[in-house]
Amino acid sequence: MTTFMTRDFLLDTPLARKLFHEHAALQPIFDFHNHLSPKDIAEHRRFHNLTELWLETDHYKWRAMRACGVEERLITGDAAPFEKFRAWAETLPKLVGNALYYWTHLELQRYFGIYELLGPETAEEIWQKTEEMLKEEGFDTVSLLARMKVQVLCTTDDPLDTLEWHKKIREDETIPFKVCPSFRPDKYLMVRQEEVKKVLAADSEDMIRAEDEAIFPEKPAEVSPEVKAAAQLCRKYETDELDLALIRALDHFKKNGCLVSDHGFSEFPYLYDPEFAGRLTLLGRAYQKRNIVMQLHLGPVRNNSAKLLSEYGPDAGGDSVGKTTDPFALSAFFKTLESEDHLPKTILYNLNPSDNMMLSTMAVNYAPKMQFGAAWWFNDMYRGINAQLDELMETGALASSVGMLTDSRSFTSFTRHEYFRRILCRKIGKLVEEGFWPEDEKTLGQIVEDICYRNAARFF
Amino acid sequence: MTTFMTRDFLLDTPLARKLFHEHAALQPIFDFHNHLSPKDIAEHRRFHNLTELWLETDHYKWRAMRACGVEERLITGDAAPFEKFRAWAETLPKLVGNALYYWTHLELQRYFGIYELLGPETAEEIWQKTEEMLKEEGFDTVSLLARMKVQVLCTTDDPLDTLEWHKKIREDETIPFKVCPSFRPDKYLMVRQEEVKKVLAADSEDMIRAEDEAIFPEKPAEVSPEVKAAAQLCRKYETDELDLALIRALDHFKKNGCLVSDHGFSEFPYLYDPEFAGRLTLLGRAYQKRNIVMQLHLGPVRNNSAKLLSEYGPDAGGDSVGKTTDPFALSAFFKTLESEDHLPKTILYNLNPSDNMMLSTMAVNYAPKMQFGAAWWFNDMYRGINAQLDELMETGALASSVGMLTDSRSFTSFTRHEYFRRILCRKIGKLVEEGFWPEDEKTLGQIVEDICYRNAARFF
Amino acid sequence: MTTFMTRDFLLDTPLARKLFHEHAALQPIFDFHNHLSPKDIAEHRRFHNLTELWLETDHYKWRAMRACGVEERLITGDAAPFEKFRAWAETLPKLVGNALYYWTHLELQRYFGIYELLGPETAEEIWQKTEEMLKEEGFDTVSLLARMKVQVLCTTDDPLDTLEWHKKIREDETIPFKVCPSFRPDKYLMVRQEEVKKVLAADSEDMIRAEDEAIFPEKPAEVSPEVKAAAQLCRKYETDELDLALIRALDHFKKNGCLVSDHGFSEFPYLYDPEFAGRLTLLGRAYQKRNIVMQLHLGPVRNNSAKLLSEYGPDAGGDSVGKTTDPFALSAFFKTLESEDHLPKTILYNLNPSDNMMLSTMAVNYAPKMQFGAAWWFNDMYRGINAQLDELMETGALASSVGMLTDSRSFTSFTRHEYFRRILCRKIGKLVEEGFWPEDEKTLGQIVEDICYRNAARFF
Repeated sequence: MTTFMTRDFLLDTPLARKLFHEHAALQPIFDFHNHLSPKDIAEHRRFHNLTELWLETDHYKWRAMRACGVEERLITGDAAPFEKFRAWAETLPKLVGNALYYWTHLELQRYFGIYELLGPETAEEIWQKTEEMLKEEGFDTVSLLARMKVQVLCTTDDPLDTLEWHKKIREDETIPFKVCPSFRPDKYLMVRQEEVKKVLAADSEDMIRAEDEAIFPEKPAEVSPEVKAAAQLCRKYETDELDLALIRALDHFKKNGCLVSDHGFSEFPYLYDPEFAGRLTLLGRAYQKRNIVMQLHLGPVRNNSAKLLSEYGPDAGGDSVGKTTDPFALSAFFKTLESEDHLPKTILYNLNPSDNMMLSTMAVNYAPKMQFGAAWWFNDMYRGINAQLDELMETGALASSVGMLTDSRSFTSFTRHEYFRRILCRKIGKLVEEGFWPEDEKTLGQIVEDICYRNAARFF
Repeated sequence: MTTFMTRDFLLDTPLARKLFHEHAALQPIFDFHNHLSPKDIAEHRRFHNLTELWLETDHYKWRAMRACGVEERLITGDAAPFEKFRAWAETLPKLVGNALYYWTHLELQRYFGIYELLGPETAEEIWQKTEEMLKEEGFDTVSLLARMKVQVLCTTDDPLDTLEWHKKIREDETIPFKVCPSFRPDKYLMVRQEEVKKVLAADSEDMIRAEDEAIFPEKPAEVSPEVKAAAQLCRKYETDELDLALIRALDHFKKNGCLVSDHGFSEFPYLYDPEFAGRLTLLGRAYQKRNIVMQLHLGPVRNNSAKLLSEYGPDAGGDSVGKTTDPFALSAFFKTLESEDHLPKTILYNLNPSDNMMLSTMAVNYAPKMQFGAAWWFNDMYRGINAQLDELMETGALASSVGMLTDSRSFTSFTRHEYFRRILCRKIGKLVEEGFWPEDEKTLGQIVEDICYRNAARFF
Repeated sequence: MTTFMTRDFLLDTPLARKLFHEHAALQPIFDFHNHLSPKDIAEHRRFHNLTELWLETDHYKWRAMRACGVEERLITGDAAPFEKFRAWAETLPKLVGNALYYWTHLELQRYFGIYELLGPETAEEIWQKTEEMLKEEGFDTVSLLARMKVQVLCTTDDPLDTLEWHKKIREDETIPFKVCPSFRPDKYLMVRQEEVKKVLAADSEDMIRAEDEAIFPEKPAEVSPEVKAAAQLCRKYETDELDLALIRALDHFKKNGCLVSDHGFSEFPYLYDPEFAGRLTLLGRAYQKRNIVMQLHLGPVRNNSAKLLSEYGPDAGGDSVGKTTDPFALSAFFKTLESEDHLPKTILYNLNPSDNMMLSTMAVNYAPKMQFGAAWWFNDMYRGINAQLDELMETGALASSVGMLTDSRSFTSFTRHEYFRRILCRKIGKLVEEGFWPEDEKTLGQIVEDICYRNAARFF
């Protein structure tokens, strides 16, 4: 048993402790952006061990292991599950100051009641103990989520998705929370309408061409996976206009409880790619009309490692921080929608921390419709969360913030809400202690509760 | 009465308290950049209530209110003055950690002797109390400024300005400080000489054309307000060369006590817009010859909200942080002037905080002629001021800094100097307490005094 | 004698003191990047006074003096050595919070045993004392380095260098450390092969042309110093292909103990300059095959002051922080090499601190081959070192970091390792004290030792 990360972890003032234990900790969770599998929820999936639960898809942990020199066999390779777990346990004590350390131990504490530190000496014991527990009641996906007082979950889904798992979840009366699909049309945004039409045209001529090919065996031009998906979407929604297919898909999502859309951009070519700009504007308008919140995630560089991409595909830990975003391009987009009264509620997220103040002040231009969102990905750590809170305090409006989300594929990642809440209460506690704010627990407690839950519930 | 923001607000070490009370607080104010109305000074204007004083033009407060969900009617709309004030009072307690909170209470304390916290419960009482006081002696614009020990004020003025109010102020022996115009030719910088000549030519043909138009009623090409202003400037200074008109206007300013010019740039197209580059270089040279300091304010995105612009015009709170500035472009500009010995004294300000180190180190390339200026606009808050001081300490020369300015339209904003001075003394006190600097009150006191007043008085 | 900067300078927790005194301070130094003169080492050069030792080439100090208004005569001009030293001593107390203050006093303490503070009152005494000491045993370059427990030094050398001084050092058995050349081909990277060939062709026709010129006295096109150097390199390595000459020079370096190459870029035109991209890729491949580490230094703007450049040449203190680097360009470069299994070990350094997270996360894409390097130049100060450590903790892997280097021309700059080590131990001590990390001196001591020395020894 350790004295590290006790009940008052990060809460270094009396006010911080009060704000956390009597306000923040009592709030339910409205997780408006994550990458959980709705199938895993619908099926009440169970995990057999910590490798399955923690290491199968978590590229955060993979990157940390690689950076500590662990060989790939023990990360994404064919090593046995316990070998992989031990490699993780050996990496962990080296991650001085890294959020993975806090997350890991918060998860051990909250989900398994384990207060030992994970390391090479405790790896085997913790492995066995958790393996046993995972067989018990309360460790299927639904129970894990319910235990954290989750009320609403917004998963991230392709417009092509049938949303059948979401329907199953809605029909399952034993699931005590809502699971809403989110509309993520990234794949389709850069697709050229012309290309889609070509594929569709080719499709209808397939019969004829199949015969012709024997005679003219010319290799047809390569069709990208994005264009293929777009064609599929068009076929599904019975149109040859990609824009229209997207709107029909959005309607399908809306009917199935969609509250929020999600866009990710490595670059934001609004000012120099008219077809992209047109499609995005069309979608923005459609969100506003359907009262769907628009999320913009700005600035990663994806798949930098050719090896990781070819061996494991995307999301293998080869992504990193990209460029800052052009504020003129963002402004042009928002102004277009706003001037015709069709700006949807919007949340802005940046990966490059240099964009913090740019986005926070941009959001206020369109307040209260627009928010500067939670610290994202590489920023979702101590410094990054603090930077986001500071930015909101000074150039936004912290009290109106919709707060935290997990953005995670992991069913035990909901302790990130706790981590965020502790940092939030620590910051406010310190502010008061250092004479920057009058001691007024009542107002501050309300503000903390709003940020942890109520603002999100109101906004969506 | 509260114990918040007492005499030692922000001064958390004995040295900080000594430095502030015995050095910083004793200095007069040399406010070398603000947007005060010279007319309001010349006329010894009075304000009738806090809404008039605080809320009529302060887009900082407007933005905060919008971000907290206050309806526009209570911000810039037709609500009654007290209604608007109450909306502000209701917003204030939500602004955890925001500089507006400190500024508001510093203003209540210093100008009105009110030590209560403004909030919904105290709004009415404070409204009435201040309404009474504003009728008394000592609350006209001149008295408000004199009370803060203002010695010099540099307002911001259009080259077209006659400067008659500045003349009136000079002639008014009851005004105990200097009010100097600043030359702000932004509007004219991007104007094409060719366009101006067209307008001037058209003017002289007005008589003829007036007749012709009955016969050929063709709509003449739209002329932008900037070109119109440029033509007006040319007419005023009896030339058809815009560059020459600007120089003549500058001479007019110089004769009226101008110490400093001011330029604001959303982008700095020095490397790809030769006409802009030529005009700016010409002005830089002219400043150097007249010993006028050149200020460059770099990086806002203006009027992002089409609605706010169309309903209230510019400066309605729809501006935000823009791009970082191209150091190659800045360098090319400065090098051009420096190589011909015509680099004027210069102060650099950035809105995007990512430019802090770039500008601070750029300034030292041309030291002691160039300064990295005070934390500007969204940066003029606790973090931003600290970041500017840190930057100067590590990559510039804090001891040579010309210090703070208000950049404000408000006659009660001079407590921002106090806020800055407290942060400065806090930082130095902490430095010594933590063993980063030897305790030497004498030298440090001198440095603090220099930064608060003497450096500016010497530089300008 | 002062109580400032005592044995526990910066070490504000018991753990920090233990980590520093019992772990960090005991490590030798592996200085893998500096600009020391190998000739000065080979010749066991002596310095006659502190001006010679400190002020002759140190543009950091020059910039600080200029920013404090010292006239150029006392900086790089013809003033007497003691006059210059006194000007420096007068500047120093003004540099509140500047790393030069700490460096200066650490150097006085460690090399001369002087614990007084340098200032106008002590300047003369310290001048005389050190002048005497510099004549004694133990103050030649080799002794100064040996005293700091230097084990390996990597100097920075032009591909044209014969490396004769490095050979002399290897043959000198009284030198107790290794001095390895580093390959720095900056000058050649932007050169056009075509231009080199023209020069070489002209050379071979010199005899003929010398005669012709009498008849056709046309002025030949200006040849840049870079092209001239490239031609010289080609001649030296008997080829007219610059790429080949560079590879042959690299082989010469490798034979003389080269462990590391070094590249500096004001811009990184990989995506739009195919000849540059080709040459850099060729070099990257060559480094990987020879197990030479590749360093990329990204982002200065050089020679901003035309005056300083024309009067003193480069490195006169006219350089400053430039643009951020394009992550897409970096990624394209690394991906090209990685996809053909030829990515060398790489260290990334940025001058613009806005690139910290971009580079730190970029490095992990290719872990463990790539590192985010030490805080560079203007960042090599308290805030910058802290920012680099924080970045490594949260988005890299601090425990694997190769740690610190001097990057300096000065033989007494090795106390910068001590400065870095104190900051490192301070940070870890604080982390534990504030409950962010379990107290485990053994593991943390190992990590500190790894960062201070062992990781570098393993990496190179």
